[in-house]
Amino acid sequence: MKRVAVIGGSGYIGGELLRLLTAHPGVELAAATSRRLGGRLIDGVHPNLRGRTSLAFVDEDKLEHYDALFLATPHRETMLRMPEFLARAEVVIDLSADFRLGCADTYADYYGVPHAAPELVETFVPGIPEFHRTRLRTADRISVPGCMANAGILALTPLAQAGLIEGEVAVDARTGSSGAGNTAGPANLHAERSGALRVFAPTRHRHEAEIAQATGLPVRMTATGVEAVRGVQLLARANVTGEATERRIRAAYRAVYRDEPFVRIVAHRKGLHRFPDAKILSGSNFCDVGFAIDPGSPQVTVISALDNLVKGGAGNAVQCMNIRLGLPEREGLEFTGLHPN
Amino acid sequence: MKRVAVIGGSGYIGGELLRLLTAHPGVELAAATSRRLGGRLIDGVHPNLRGRTSLAFVDEDKLEHYDALFLATPHRETMLRMPEFLARAEVVIDLSADFRLGCADTYADYYGVPHAAPELVETFVPGIPEFHRTRLRTADRISVPGCMANAGILALTPLAQAGLIEGEVAVDARTGSSGAGNTAGPANLHAERSGALRVFAPTRHRHEAEIAQATGLPVRMTATGVEAVRGVQLLARANVTGEATERRIRAAYRAVYRDEPFVRIVAHRKGLHRFPDAKILSGSNFCDVGFAIDPGSPQVTVISALDNLVKGGAGNAVQCMNIRLGLPEREGLEFTGLHPN
Amino acid sequence: MKRVAVIGGSGYIGGELLRLLTAHPGVELAAATSRRLGGRLIDGVHPNLRGRTSLAFVDEDKLEHYDALFLATPHRETMLRMPEFLARAEVVIDLSADFRLGCADTYADYYGVPHAAPELVETFVPGIPEFHRTRLRTADRISVPGCMANAGILALTPLAQAGLIEGEVAVDARTGSSGAGNTAGPANLHAERSGALRVFAPTRHRHEAEIAQATGLPVRMTATGVEAVRGVQLLARANVTGEATERRIRAAYRAVYRDEPFVRIVAHRKGLHRFPDAKILSGSNFCDVGFAIDPGSPQVTVISALDNLVKGGAGNAVQCMNIRLGLPEREGLEFTGLHPN
Amino acid sequence: MKRVAVIGGSGYIGGELLRLLTAHPGVELAAATSRRLGGRLIDGVHPNLRGRTSLAFVDEDKLEHYDALFLATPHRETMLRMPEFLARAEVVIDLSADFRLGCADTYADYYGVPHAAPELVETFVPGIPEFHRTRLRTADRISVPGCMANAGILALTPLAQAGLIEGEVAVDARTGSSGAGNTAGPANLHAERSGALRVFAPTRHRHEAEIAQATGLPVRMTATGVEAVRGVQLLARANVTGEATERRIRAAYRAVYRDEPFVRIVAHRKGLHRFPDAKILSGSNFCDVGFAIDPGSPQVTVISALDNLVKGGAGNAVQCMNIRLGLPEREGLEFTGLHPN
Repeated sequence: MKRVAVIGGSGYIGGELLRLLTAHPGVELAAATSRRLGGRLIDGVHPNLRGRTSLAFVDEDKLEHYDALFLATPHRETMLRMPEFLARAEVVIDLSADFRLGCADTYADYYGVPHAAPELVETFVPGIPEFHRTRLRTADRISVPGCMANAGILALTPLAQAGLIEGEVAVDARTGSSGAGNTAGPANLHAERSGALRVFAPTRHRHEAEIAQATGLPVRMTATGVEAVRGVQLLARANVTGEATERRIRAAYRAVYRDEPFVRIVAHRKGLHRFPDAKILSGSNFCDVGFAIDPGSPQVTVISALDNLVKGGAGNAVQCMNIRLGLPEREGLEFTGLHPN
Repeated sequence: MKRVAVIGGSGYIGGELLRLLTAHPGVELAAATSRRLGGRLIDGVHPNLRGRTSLAFVDEDKLEHYDALFLATPHRETMLRMPEFLARAEVVIDLSADFRLGCADTYADYYGVPHAAPELVETFVPGIPEFHRTRLRTADRISVPGCMANAGILALTPLAQAGLIEGEVAVDARTGSSGAGNTAGPANLHAERSGALRVFAPTRHRHEAEIAQATGLPVRMTATGVEAVRGVQLLARANVTGEATERRIRAAYRAVYRDEPFVRIVAHRKGLHRFPDAKILSGSNFCDVGFAIDPGSPQVTVISALDNLVKGGAGNAVQCMNIRLGLPEREGLEFTGLHPN
Repeated sequence: MKRVAVIGGSGYIGGELLRLLTAHPGVELAAATSRRLGGRLIDGVHPNLRGRTSLAFVDEDKLEHYDALFLATPHRETMLRMPEFLARAEVVIDLSADFRLGCADTYADYYGVPHAAPELVETFVPGIPEFHRTRLRTADRISVPGCMANAGILALTPLAQAGLIEGEVAVDARTGSSGAGNTAGPANLHAERSGALRVFAPTRHRHEAEIAQATGLPVRMTATGVEAVRGVQLLARANVTGEATERRIRAAYRAVYRDEPFVRIVAHRKGLHRFPDAKILSGSNFCDVGFAIDPGSPQVTVISALDNLVKGGAGNAVQCMNIRLGLPEREGLEFTGLHPN
Repeated sequence: MKRVAVIGGSGYIGGELLRLLTAHPGVELAAATSRRLGGRLIDGVHPNLRGRTSLAFVDEDKLEHYDALFLATPHRETMLRMPEFLARAEVVIDLSADFRLGCADTYADYYGVPHAAPELVETFVPGIPEFHRTRLRTADRISVPGCMANAGILALTPLAQAGLIEGEVAVDARTGSSGAGNTAGPANLHAERSGALRVFAPTRHRHEAEIAQATGLPVRMTATGVEAVRGVQLLARANVTGEATERRIRAAYRAVYRDEPFVRIVAHRKGLHRFPDAKILSGSNFCDVGFAIDPGSPQVTVISALDNLVKGGAGNAVQCMNIRLGLPEREGLEFTGLHPN
């Protein structure tokens, strides 16, 4: 039984890690820390875990050494403290933004601060099983992509790798309120956020840089907060090289995702559920990817959706852990999502 | 043209007063204060007022003397500062809780602090046009009831006055998130509040005391936060004296509300809209009141609904102002609400 | 491996049965029927099951004999066809309303039609593991309670059995839109139902009869449709015999539910999650039960919540199946629910 | 007092016309027809109008001759019956799709049927006061644009007319459920539609053709149903000719909209309400238009929002009527919208 711990367990990503790890048959959740809530029972903060864990949050000085350590810590703090985190576990799985971008300049450009540990950046393997599974099997340092970034990377990489799209990609991302975390602020007030269509990043959202890095394509991304707690949906437009046919696009996705446990190709001609919708993915580790061709147009419209806290964060991190620790890749991640929901 | 001002205009009740007063043909909004946001443009805080006012919030030392002064100030502070407010206007209309309860002991019991100005309490006329219109015509001090209180008072008083109900009344109140105001806190986070059915006051909600005072009936009230920004719905159960027939109940409501501009009796046998629902009342000054009889039971179930910020607050206050200043009672309050919404 | 089938798999309760049974390690889903959608792939109707099943809905003439047969058929039809259903399986688990009420007259009274198979009614064991576990171990005919009924039965029975409450119980039930099933009608239109507080049964909701039967108490229930897809929350008021203390009430619940796998006692003094809220129960088989005492009042206010499609239907049915087939009672029902959600 | 009538008053657009016309001081609503609900009281169908009108829906054979006739009839039927409608009023204001597209081939292309009255098409003036006010003053036949089309036309035309943008415009439209009307169908079921991010038109939405026609730009539009009853938000990306500076863009909008009563330029550097959001526009006739520049990019991102039933339909139609009948343009359209909402 592998022993794992979570740093920063009182937030939403941290809570989702605790939900998945306490139900995971292959690991033992040994500790979860919270600076704010040290000593408080986990299920007092995450009421869905009532009856599932009797652990309380501990202070970091109580930490021991673990098989795997999950970091749900803020960016900036994470890169400053990474050396101490690395000393605490065989495998460190970082859910912060600090080690996602390979280029320190790009980091400084998008995050507005110089990177504090550029020499460490290249030692991290991207936490993207679909494209880095082999490296993840032996990786001791894993950096999990951002929620919208992962939705974009999984939507566009197969087409980019097959050379099927070229030129600038316009990405329209929609996200639920849990992406903002559980720190109260006017922007996150229910009365302000409920029913909102809030364009909070008309240009240059940070996840744009991750998608560009992974796909090698120039990406312009806009992010809008929509009425949902969980869920990310991405809509991307790109120009197709050569003939834009459904057959070519579908074949490119099939070739990459045919055997993937957590990516589904969803592109139907009719029905209520023709394209990916985060509505039915809450709690699940699936990323659904679909597309549409406009006959006579050189463009393809790609749509992807996931639960920002699961495949967009904690679930994806657990999938990486399973791969690294030699556990069945699906273990602890089988929940299918709900319909209706 | 009457000159009016609002103390505490940056909150939700304050903002609603500004929405109604800037559109009111009979008054001029001379000033609105905000301690937090003094100097900031009103439409920067309340974006729905873009193009409707160019005023900025002022500090209180900028205040002059007005025909009517609306107080959207916190309870406790309001009773402590009432003397200075009274000096600022011919008519003071208080939307805080401090002068609603005639008995200082009851206030202390429900609010947990002794009343700071008990001698002033009885000088306030209840801001309930349906039952105090005559006194309101000459009242210089008006205390507007709480949002759930008003829904309960309008639902139960006609039956109580007619002696149609007796014994304890069980009230189940449901309210939207705007009732909590715009101060950010974990309880009001969208991710926590969205879709919630939060029983935040299982017993002894403060508005219970107002309903009991107005109706003379023993009331037990439970309050639940539901998924809505605006809106209050009350469901009350009471025992009927004598025969519980639809005819007797309807007659009692008709007798009181037949000519009321802002109370509608809504009790149909079929259709989607048989009973009051706050869903169609957003922005309107209506309180809808309905009821149902259980054949063979001595009980009546009464249902009422209103917009907590309008008939449950700012709109009701403007209606009182219209009465007091000799303006048409409906003026500035004609919006019907939306369907669908 | 037990072979099970579902009659009426295209509805919401049917779909939830399919979600749980396809993920259940102890059973094989052998068939699911749909009159409307025979021949259509299950995951085309329930998109959350994409990749989890390749089955298509079959016509009933394709049915064989099964270890357990789940009926998600309409009431009336179910009682008329029960004999043929009984011939198809060793154990029949009925999720319709037809065999819930022991007294045919009560059925006729609440459902407006005479019961078609009164002689069969008493051969069904109530699908309420918390109170009928022993009988369920050998029951060949199981009738699962209604969603709001189960929330009420689990909330009130421990107090009734302990003789802690007496007299009429006033129940205020709130329910999400999935309870109405997936048959389109004006009442279920998103634009009409969204944000609604629709009192659709001010008196005499059918589930009232089930709660009265199970608790032996006179019950008056009101049902309101609230803004949610899943979820039922019940609020009940009753008079306490003798002294109404938190200690006595809590002890009564502890005595009954201490070892129950799917009932949690939720009654805290503070925090966001003091009382049961269906918001965090979507997809889980938990029923949370809480209560509040009003000091100096003889009343107790009881609050319970569950997911109407899980503990209020399909999940509860699977729990009954586990008991009857000798499988671990929790099997296939471990999902904890999500926070935030 | 002008006498007006509405054909097809039982739908959502029809109901919104009735809400605006019954509150309009300059006109008398003489009749409203409904084939489905002839004889039924208007306020039984549109409960927000309780107390505002005692009219019942009439059959069309009861119609007389009016100063203005509003058509809220289905497309196809409208073009087939237009001659009889034209005979019934001095001014016909059509809210259907049939006379929006100047080119019959384009109509056939997007609507899949040949146009039944091509000779009439060019006799209609576009119901877009911002760009056709002069012609509208004398127009006897007015065709009001589609909800998403109007949001796109108002967002893009000033930039197109100023020659500030060139090449293909990518439009991402989000819409609430009321846009689908009140005909019940599985797609509009609350349980299916609630919380959905449904890409129902990945390419070639019909309103795309209207925007292209009005702006002269090639437009590619995608439409997504989002969680809202009312509201449309459009996000458009275009390449800027010459230098893409905020100053040039803002100047182009100011030049066109400076004196427009119902278009507001909303583009702020900070705050919760930096860009247009339909959330605060429900019930109002405003279209808010904003934009963002990505420094160093040749692109501009334009955002617009409106209430699909008001500025996207009924309100815009009433504004056209005011212009045509010589009434004050703002009359009956002053509602500001709500915050919070």
